[in-house]
Amino acid sequence: MQILDIIKKKRDGNELTAAELQFFVTEYTKGQIPDYQASALLMAIYLRGMTAKETSILADSMLHSGDVLDLSLIPGIKVDKHSTGGVGDKISIPLAPLVAAAGVKNPMISGRGLGHTGGTLDKLEAIPGFNVNLTEDDFIDQVSAIGTAIISATQDVAPADKKIYALRDTTGTVDSIPLIASSIMSKKLASGTNALVLDVKTGSGAFMQDFDDARSLAKQLLDIGQAHQTKMVALITNMNQPLGVKVGNTLEVEESIDILKGQGPEDTTKLTIELGAYMLVLAEQAKDIQTARTILQEKIADGSALAKFKELVEAEGGDVRVVDNYQLMPHAKNQIVVTALDDGYVNAIDTNDLGMLVVYLGGGRLKKTDKIDPGVGLVIHKKVGDYVHRGEPLVTVHANSFDDDQVQSSIHQAYHLSAVQPPAEELIYEIMEE
Amino acid sequence: MQILDIIKKKRDGNELTAAELQFFVTEYTKGQIPDYQASALLMAIYLRGMTAKETSILADSMLHSGDVLDLSLIPGIKVDKHSTGGVGDKISIPLAPLVAAAGVKNPMISGRGLGHTGGTLDKLEAIPGFNVNLTEDDFIDQVSAIGTAIISATQDVAPADKKIYALRDTTGTVDSIPLIASSIMSKKLASGTNALVLDVKTGSGAFMQDFDDARSLAKQLLDIGQAHQTKMVALITNMNQPLGVKVGNTLEVEESIDILKGQGPEDTTKLTIELGAYMLVLAEQAKDIQTARTILQEKIADGSALAKFKELVEAEGGDVRVVDNYQLMPHAKNQIVVTALDDGYVNAIDTNDLGMLVVYLGGGRLKKTDKIDPGVGLVIHKKVGDYVHRGEPLVTVHANSFDDDQVQSSIHQAYHLSAVQPPAEELIYEIMEE
Repeated sequence: MQILDIIKKKRDGNELTAAELQFFVTEYTKGQIPDYQASALLMAIYLRGMTAKETSILADSMLHSGDVLDLSLIPGIKVDKHSTGGVGDKISIPLAPLVAAAGVKNPMISGRGLGHTGGTLDKLEAIPGFNVNLTEDDFIDQVSAIGTAIISATQDVAPADKKIYALRDTTGTVDSIPLIASSIMSKKLASGTNALVLDVKTGSGAFMQDFDDARSLAKQLLDIGQAHQTKMVALITNMNQPLGVKVGNTLEVEESIDILKGQGPEDTTKLTIELGAYMLVLAEQAKDIQTARTILQEKIADGSALAKFKELVEAEGGDVRVVDNYQLMPHAKNQIVVTALDDGYVNAIDTNDLGMLVVYLGGGRLKKTDKIDPGVGLVIHKKVGDYVHRGEPLVTVHANSFDDDQVQSSIHQAYHLSAVQPPAEELIYEIMEE
Repeated sequence: MQILDIIKKKRDGNELTAAELQFFVTEYTKGQIPDYQASALLMAIYLRGMTAKETSILADSMLHSGDVLDLSLIPGIKVDKHSTGGVGDKISIPLAPLVAAAGVKNPMISGRGLGHTGGTLDKLEAIPGFNVNLTEDDFIDQVSAIGTAIISATQDVAPADKKIYALRDTTGTVDSIPLIASSIMSKKLASGTNALVLDVKTGSGAFMQDFDDARSLAKQLLDIGQAHQTKMVALITNMNQPLGVKVGNTLEVEESIDILKGQGPEDTTKLTIELGAYMLVLAEQAKDIQTARTILQEKIADGSALAKFKELVEAEGGDVRVVDNYQLMPHAKNQIVVTALDDGYVNAIDTNDLGMLVVYLGGGRLKKTDKIDPGVGLVIHKKVGDYVHRGEPLVTVHANSFDDDQVQSSIHQAYHLSAVQPPAEELIYEIMEE
């Protein structure tokens, strides 16, 4: 088998066989296929697309390029959640202990922030002592013991995906739905979960700004799950404004704890319960979604979700006192209150730009090796549909070193005011099942 | 300027600016852009295409990546010919001395064989002593003195094209009409010629098997010429069977000399005169094509074309005695006469396969570093439309080491016989001017 023939076949719009895709993944991972041939193939895939069968085989090949966790020692149905990422999306942090409190075994392998979106691992590390680098054995022991663990993937999980992603990043082949779908699923399937709830975000703060693209991605993710006997549900959700009221690492842990205390913002509380409800149903811990919602609301109300969060923090070496004292986490030196320049309804928010402001302040990464400043971030006072008077606070920016003009203008440019109240937006657009 | 932005722009189907194309060519040639980004861009160009403007700018950028010959010391209009290549295409060899005998200054920079087609330089090197590696000064002196020289391009001509071509060869991006057109023209324009006659071949022995592709390539070549103030004419010609009756290096020099003696096959003689006639008109040595044809026929009839060939061979160190004694050139030890298995008309010949048989016998190259065996080749006894009786010779194969079964079956598989005579084919399909 020759890689040149595989490139030409895809270039000409033909479907690659399982043997051809496996050959590419295996030989490229071993360094037997040079980057310049792999990138030509990736561009051909970008422009010619892949069938559902090809996408599933590609995911499978990348999944088997490294270690596949065996969670069979943990009794019961293991359920994970994956979000395609957005600004202020801290849902994994309250969700993991909440569903664990309701009896779901939740082995969560999370990621770090890149670009305008944050990452669960960076956020948890705002808690002093929190260690996301568990061994496989410790991970399994912890999920068995307390029902949940949130950890970083080891270097040995889907190494083909890591190598291919790095090449895509420099060759203009990131935004390909089949490549995104196979990348996500190779990592998720390697984690050994039995079921998966997907939060596929769309809007101005999402990677998939276009609704149809988000739907197409969800469909491809579900197809791969089905081919791998993994039960899945996908929620297509709104990312046209920051989720909740806090953006940034420490600040998002604060909001996560607020949600578990029953004091969280309406949107993030609702999304946590909705995603959790589907996890309960997939884990067969509730007979239907409405029952599951009620169970989860009770777990918040009776304090057991918050107690489970403390167990999680303690198990991974974190300082549990943060739950009652947010000041034990790092905070920025300065709070800049940015106020409205006019009266009007908030009509739209350029959410990606707010995410990039946090990156600029040091709270995110442009490249993988960038260091994170956990204390910086945004507190959002006005969301889409709210009325604001001139001079009223829009956003409080938490920053260490910053340029005041740039901070002010970033917020003003991101907020679009109008005289008429915009129609209310849905938080959850659609539920898609296999 | 960032190469990643350029890749994304072309990937999305947009036209690149002159600055962007120049940046790519210059930085890639300097090694500042890695192969894996260049190959992603080339695949995007392959699948998205390029406008006439982009193709011309790409040719121009590659042309200026190295030395551009200055032929202004040679008085008059300099005219070259370029063929896209085919099996048995030895036309440059009789054409150069023929037009020089008629007063055209013909500075010819030629190539070597690769794949199923031969190269003029390899063929000339079948003449003992012939040296195609002239310095720029010697090249100019020789064209000034005798009107023609056939040489190899120096390493410093269009180095960007060399580097990009090598990458295309391994990444499935060879067969892109704008990339082929810009590659050809970057080299031809760097040779400093004022005018150019193109022989764009189409059919079973050509790179462009499809007529419309050949026409499209000719159009793009003419467009680039026009943008560079180079007068050009393109002939779209038939490559559905080997040109002439001899294929292989020594054998094609023999046929070339036969043409100059007025004893050549009808098709190669006609094509030499037709291409030459357009060169005479572009060089303003004849007022119209019919006059030019008459002049060239006279130059063959009166022996001056053959005399000019001797001058050319002598000027480049070759043994001129070959003109009267073909045995002074290397010949293969064995002549295998392959005969027809049935009666019938030759309906079609898989010309590419005959070219590849010569490569297999050692007369061509699969990769640039392969050595050539000049003596091997084919003598064609039956061409399309000819009637053949069972047992009559189709082809005599000249070979040193060979597998008799493979030689026999290659010829039999390439020849398609039919009961009905096929319609006569045109040698020249179309003349295209700027």
